[in-house]
Amino acid sequence: MRILLDVMGGDLPPHELIKGGISAGRRHGIDITFSGDPSAITAALAQHREKVGGKYDILPSRTVIRMDDAPVKSVREKPDSSLIVGLEAVRDGQADAFVSPGNTGAIVAGSIFRLGRCPDIPRPGILVTLPTLGGRDLYVIDVGANSDTSPEQLFHFALMGLTYARDVAGIDAPIAGLLNIGTEKGKGNKLISDAFEMLEASPLPFAGNVEAHQLLTDRPVDVVVSDGFVGNVFLKAVEGGISAVTGLLKNTIRGRVLAMLGALLMSGSFARVKGTLSYRRRGGAPLLGVNGVVVIAHGRSDAEAIESAIEVACRQVRADLPAQFAQGASVWGPHGS
Amino acid sequence: MRILLDVMGGDLPPHELIKGGISAGRRHGIDITFSGDPSAITAALAQHREKVGGKYDILPSRTVIRMDDAPVKSVREKPDSSLIVGLEAVRDGQADAFVSPGNTGAIVAGSIFRLGRCPDIPRPGILVTLPTLGGRDLYVIDVGANSDTSPEQLFHFALMGLTYARDVAGIDAPIAGLLNIGTEKGKGNKLISDAFEMLEASPLPFAGNVEAHQLLTDRPVDVVVSDGFVGNVFLKAVEGGISAVTGLLKNTIRGRVLAMLGALLMSGSFARVKGTLSYRRRGGAPLLGVNGVVVIAHGRSDAEAIESAIEVACRQVRADLPAQFAQGASVWGPHGS
Repeated sequence: MRILLDVMGGDLPPHELIKGGISAGRRHGIDITFSGDPSAITAALAQHREKVGGKYDILPSRTVIRMDDAPVKSVREKPDSSLIVGLEAVRDGQADAFVSPGNTGAIVAGSIFRLGRCPDIPRPGILVTLPTLGGRDLYVIDVGANSDTSPEQLFHFALMGLTYARDVAGIDAPIAGLLNIGTEKGKGNKLISDAFEMLEASPLPFAGNVEAHQLLTDRPVDVVVSDGFVGNVFLKAVEGGISAVTGLLKNTIRGRVLAMLGALLMSGSFARVKGTLSYRRRGGAPLLGVNGVVVIAHGRSDAEAIESAIEVACRQVRADLPAQFAQGASVWGPHGS
Repeated sequence: MRILLDVMGGDLPPHELIKGGISAGRRHGIDITFSGDPSAITAALAQHREKVGGKYDILPSRTVIRMDDAPVKSVREKPDSSLIVGLEAVRDGQADAFVSPGNTGAIVAGSIFRLGRCPDIPRPGILVTLPTLGGRDLYVIDVGANSDTSPEQLFHFALMGLTYARDVAGIDAPIAGLLNIGTEKGKGNKLISDAFEMLEASPLPFAGNVEAHQLLTDRPVDVVVSDGFVGNVFLKAVEGGISAVTGLLKNTIRGRVLAMLGALLMSGSFARVKGTLSYRRRGGAPLLGVNGVVVIAHGRSDAEAIESAIEVACRQVRADLPAQFAQGASVWGPHGS
C-alpha cells in the first residue's frame, strides 16, 4: 500500500510532516510518496537516513495552495500544486490514498474535480471522529464539505457514515441519528424534517433525532448526520466550550496557592483529558463520497497527527471503502446487514 | 412595576418558583402576579408570610401547558392555562412583563398570538446571555424561536440584539457579528451570505463573520446573530463540550489519591467556574420582537434562577425595549447612534 502525503499546505513546515510520514511507513509497513518541494523532502529523508525512491518517494510540485486561498479558484489556478499533483497520483493509481493537512475547501474541490464522485453519491461529506465520556468514539458527518444541503445528501451522509462505522471503525451494528434541536419527530427545520422522513422510510438503521448537548456524554448513536454548516458550528462550539471551561479554571486558580497546588496534583489528570480530546490521536477527517480515499488532517498537524491521519487512510484502503458505498442502502435492510 | 410570573409550567413545583418571585419582589420593590393554581399560590404566600392581593397577587388558571405539549396546538387548546392567561394579563396592561420557565415553543407561539409582533419585525427571536473568559457577557440571538430563517429576519435579530445590548445591558457602542463557519466574506451558506450583504449595507454596527470556537474565549463582538436552528445547536454544543471535559476529568481522577486530593484543593475553583457558567445567575432568555416584555426562564429554574429572570424582565421594562425596536436601523447610523 502506498499513501500520498501532501507536505506543503499545512501550518507546520514540510520536515515535521515528513517525519510523521516516515514514522507511519516504518510502523505500518507501508510506502509513502511525498508531494512537495523536492529539495525539502530530500533533505528531510536524509536527516532520517532514508533514501529517495522505493519505500519513500518524491512527487515534485512547484506551487502551494495556501490556507487562505479561495478553494475553487486555487484548484483551477494551481494545477502544479502539491495538493493537485498528489490527487492526480491517486487518480492515476500511483497511490492508494491521499492525506493532506492543507486548505479543507481546496481538498474538497480538488477531490471532486480530480477524483470525481462515487456513483449515486450526490455530494461528498467530511466525517470526524470524536471522543465520548464512555470511551467509545462518535462519528459525525458532514462537518463542512457543504454549506447548503438537501435531504437526499443527508441520507447519503448517513449511508456513508454507517458504512465507515461498520467497515473502518469495526462497529458491529452501527446506528445513525440526525442532529436536531429536539428529539421528537417533526422538530427542527424543513431540511431535517424531510431527511427524517427519508431515513425513517429507508432500510438504514436510524434512531431518530439527537441533540448536541448529549452527544459526547450519552453517545445515543454511533453516527451523527448533519448538514455541513451545522456540523461545523457544532464541532467548533464543542471546542469553544472546552476552551472556555479550561480557561476559566486557569483564571480562577491564579494567585490562589492551595488551588495552584491542587492543579499541580491534578496535572496528570489534566494531561490525560487533554490527550483524550486531542485531534492528534484521532488522525484526520476522511472525505467520504469521492472516488478514492482522501483524509483531511488538521491544519496544525504535527508528525504525530500526520501519522495518525495516515493510519486512518490505511484502514479505509483495506476496507475498500469507496467501493462499499456503491452497494447503496439495500444491504442495510433486515436481511442484508 | 408589576411582573406576571407563570408558576405552573416549569420542571420544579410552584412553591419553588413563587419563592423566587417573592424574593424578587422584596429585593427590587416590584409587584408580582402569579398565574397558576390559586390554592398552591395562596399556600406558598402564607408560608412566606405574605398576604394575597396588592404586592403579591393571584391570577387563577385551570390548566397547564406541559413541556412535551405541541406548542401551537396547546396554545389553541388551553386558553385557560397559566401561560395564556398570564400573557393576556400583559396584553391587557395588568402587568408590565411576562416570565415563565415553561414550554419554550408555547411561550413563543402564545406571545405571537396574544401580544402580536412589534411593528416591522418579521419574527421574534430568543436572546441568551453567555459568560466569556474576559468577564464580559456575550449576547446571542436567535437560539430557537425559529427553525427556518430568512436574511431579513437575521437583519432584524441584529437590530434587536444591538438595541438590547445598548439599552438593557448598558454596552456603550455594541457591535454585531454573524455566526458562520469561516470569518471571510462569502463563507458559509446562502442564508448567511445574503444576511452579510444586508448587514454590510445597513447602518448597523457590523463586524462581519464570527466562528463558534472563538466566541466565549475571544469575544470578538458583543452580539452574535444566528438562525434559530444553528444558534440552538451552538448553545447545546457548548454545554456538551463543558459537560464532556468535566465528566472526563471526574473519570480520570477516580481512584487516584493525589489527583483526588488535588481536586479537593481546587474545589473552590471548580465551584467558581460552575457559578460563572450557571444559567441561574444570568436569568432567563428574553423573547425579543413581540409586543411586550417576555422572558423565558430555564425549564429547570429554581427560586434563584426565577429571581434572576424577573430582574432581566425589569431591566427591559425600564428600557422600554419593544418601543426602541420601532425606531428601526436608522438611529444606528453614523449620526444617530
